[in-house]
Amino acid sequence: MYLRKSLLAVAIAAGSLFSFSASSAQQVDLMITDATLLTMNDSKETFENGVVVISGNKIIAVGDKSIASKYAAKTVLDVDGDIVLPGLINTHTHASMTVFRSLGDDVLDRLHRYVFPLEKKLVSRDMVRIGANLGNVEMVKGGVTTYADMYYFEDEVAKTVDKIGMRAILGESVIKFPVADAANAEEGIQYAVNFIEEYKDHPRITPAFAPHAPYTNTTEVLQKIAKLSLELDVPVMIHLAESHREEEVIAERANGMSPVEYMHSIGALNKNLIGAHMILIDDKDIELVKESDMGVAHNMSANIKSAKGVSPALKMYDEGVRIGLGTDGPMSGNTLSIIDEFNQVAKVHKLVNKDRAAMPPIKVIDMATMGAAKALHMEDKIGSIEVGKLADIIVVDTKAPNMLPVYNPYSALVYSANSSNVRHTIVDGKILMKDREMLTVDEEQIRQEVLEFTKIVRKTVIESGEIVQ
Amino acid sequence: MYLRKSLLAVAIAAGSLFSFSASSAQQVDLMITDATLLTMNDSKETFENGVVVISGNKIIAVGDKSIASKYAAKTVLDVDGDIVLPGLINTHTHASMTVFRSLGDDVLDRLHRYVFPLEKKLVSRDMVRIGANLGNVEMVKGGVTTYADMYYFEDEVAKTVDKIGMRAILGESVIKFPVADAANAEEGIQYAVNFIEEYKDHPRITPAFAPHAPYTNTTEVLQKIAKLSLELDVPVMIHLAESHREEEVIAERANGMSPVEYMHSIGALNKNLIGAHMILIDDKDIELVKESDMGVAHNMSANIKSAKGVSPALKMYDEGVRIGLGTDGPMSGNTLSIIDEFNQVAKVHKLVNKDRAAMPPIKVIDMATMGAAKALHMEDKIGSIEVGKLADIIVVDTKAPNMLPVYNPYSALVYSANSSNVRHTIVDGKILMKDREMLTVDEEQIRQEVLEFTKIVRKTVIESGEIVQ
Repeated sequence: MYLRKSLLAVAIAAGSLFSFSASSAQQVDLMITDATLLTMNDSKETFENGVVVISGNKIIAVGDKSIASKYAAKTVLDVDGDIVLPGLINTHTHASMTVFRSLGDDVLDRLHRYVFPLEKKLVSRDMVRIGANLGNVEMVKGGVTTYADMYYFEDEVAKTVDKIGMRAILGESVIKFPVADAANAEEGIQYAVNFIEEYKDHPRITPAFAPHAPYTNTTEVLQKIAKLSLELDVPVMIHLAESHREEEVIAERANGMSPVEYMHSIGALNKNLIGAHMILIDDKDIELVKESDMGVAHNMSANIKSAKGVSPALKMYDEGVRIGLGTDGPMSGNTLSIIDEFNQVAKVHKLVNKDRAAMPPIKVIDMATMGAAKALHMEDKIGSIEVGKLADIIVVDTKAPNMLPVYNPYSALVYSANSSNVRHTIVDGKILMKDREMLTVDEEQIRQEVLEFTKIVRKTVIESGEIVQ
Repeated sequence: MYLRKSLLAVAIAAGSLFSFSASSAQQVDLMITDATLLTMNDSKETFENGVVVISGNKIIAVGDKSIASKYAAKTVLDVDGDIVLPGLINTHTHASMTVFRSLGDDVLDRLHRYVFPLEKKLVSRDMVRIGANLGNVEMVKGGVTTYADMYYFEDEVAKTVDKIGMRAILGESVIKFPVADAANAEEGIQYAVNFIEEYKDHPRITPAFAPHAPYTNTTEVLQKIAKLSLELDVPVMIHLAESHREEEVIAERANGMSPVEYMHSIGALNKNLIGAHMILIDDKDIELVKESDMGVAHNMSANIKSAKGVSPALKMYDEGVRIGLGTDGPMSGNTLSIIDEFNQVAKVHKLVNKDRAAMPPIKVIDMATMGAAKALHMEDKIGSIEVGKLADIIVVDTKAPNMLPVYNPYSALVYSANSSNVRHTIVDGKILMKDREMLTVDEEQIRQEVLEFTKIVRKTVIESGEIVQ
């Protein structure tokens, strides 16, 4: 009897303790602890022994280790001092083109002589799906949580993004010549409108228009897209001020105007626009960019690979332009992981500015997170680790021999890290990659589909000699 | 009885077969099969389904799959189509400085205001050993099989190289002010001579002199080292034509001569010399370099990080100068893996030459293998996969999402690969890393020693504020 009572007392006490603990500690889904935490908020706050608390798809608390005891998390990721930062944002790519990677690199006038003929032969729904699947895996493994894509059959890309769990702005291409999913620009616009209708309420996907470039579309088409984008409240992505060929065509079309001046003059330079590249711009163009509140995608690595030059991206950043980093497509970059851009972005801007203090690591990281979020007009939702934002977060290994030691996490990320140092990738509160294992897709199956598709590519491009380098 | 006889017959037959097989197939130590093989020999021969056969520390056969049956190897590495190429050669670094990585990046006049004071406080035998151990692991994991090092206490570095099994040229520093292992240049020379005496017969280590730079040494010291190096038949490594400060000091010392002209004028520009950086050189300097038969270490990534400019490395390469790639030290680069240089080397030379066809991938790979071997005057021993050469070989993963697909292995290596894509590293016929696991050293112990040492660094540099950024 005594024993029973005693056991009961213990049971009650244990129960009380448990319920006390449960009532005082808030139940949450995910908590990251022991982080070298770079919030990338306005004051660039950092925490040693940092903690991030996630409920559903949102960040609900950020702080040092003292906050951890207030929460009871279903999953705790103790990252043992590793660097935790906002998910990286790739502001410009063509993910499906991974299936063409390493083909015809360095061919002169490559877009027109090589890429367009290649696409005419080989772009299809299958190709777009297979390539996007690979691109998505590469990005998640490289710490990219959101990307902005321009290609064909974007509804196929959308399915892959939905499946893997990433966030994306997907722009359906509009171009004046016949392409795989449209016979002309009008059909391209209609394809885009249908796609926008289908995906406009998706929680992680923002459908968009993607007129290829000013010189590959008519003024009428560009104006129509600008008008529709405002009506439908969707972004417009375009290659802008990228090449001398474009400059020449536009100057002839529009009384010597620059591509940026031209877009402004036709009413197409506005807050919905995201301009990729923006290499050939002067101070007058930058003023127009600022006034318009448009976003800019800076693709350093791809731009110098094609010897097109270096965008005045640092100047734009310093003057408050909405600007983020992009990789361009895998036939241009040739990788999709923003982290592999860092080193070049920092160093090439130092080189061209003849100043080793130019483009310090913290600016590079800002351009990959908050800057990129601003470029996509998503800074209220993503780009920093702050209470109320969506939980897009990555964890970067600090123990790999190339990362060790870390006296300055910004320097370590920019000058030392590569995409393989990303350990975990979280999007919308969900872990998509853990310890480099993909959790939401079958990486091996995706790889096999790519290898199968390369047989068709080899036959068309290499063995047949139909498209000659 | 019948049964017995029959069994005996089978046994004899099996024995015969076995001995037939054993006698016809040559016994070897290691065979790599199913390789996408880039030999980097003079004709840049490649093999699909390539095979490399290794006996002891030498390559004894190279070919397609038809040769495999001639050999019975103790170990077979079936690499399943992965890229196999000569081990990468880092022609210039300061491996021990890994312990300082990510400290004081981007400080103006960094060498004199930050690095020299830091070294004065912290360089010791322990620091050199701990840092070299980490640098070695980083290099082996990044596919570097041979490196050229300039630092202090090089006998400590030598012990680490001997242990891990790499190949190296190790240059003991000589500089005019007091440093950790010498009170002045004379003591530095004596330290180097003793070190050379100790290591001159080591099978994988070449001891050398390393006068820091022309402007940090007197003419007398540079001449004495040049003379000793010819007598002792050892290399001399030096930072040359790197900075405007150097140009100014030398111009004042030597009637307006450039650093290269000055070195030539004092008899120090010869076949034993390896000049690092060589940024500030003109055509006249390049002529002197060619005549001298000296080697050049091109450290693109470090040079542009400090905004020093871009060496005319492509021009030198095209004109037949002995030139290879280097990373510089981890406070400059900031990584030691040559593979992470490829992308920048290709792209920045395209940018400065305003030509997307400039510096194609095959030239980059050549500068990391045969070019680098020539720069170190080791081209008879390493730099290509050819019969008779030492077996320094790496295997690069082609299945990682950033590498897939591989239509052109040179492009894939240069534009897509990063150091983590290296799967296996072989030096002198011995596997030092297999599937990214270090086989000859304890990586975790090395990491712990580095972390322990960083406490001293933090105390000296960061907490005490003794060395201010």
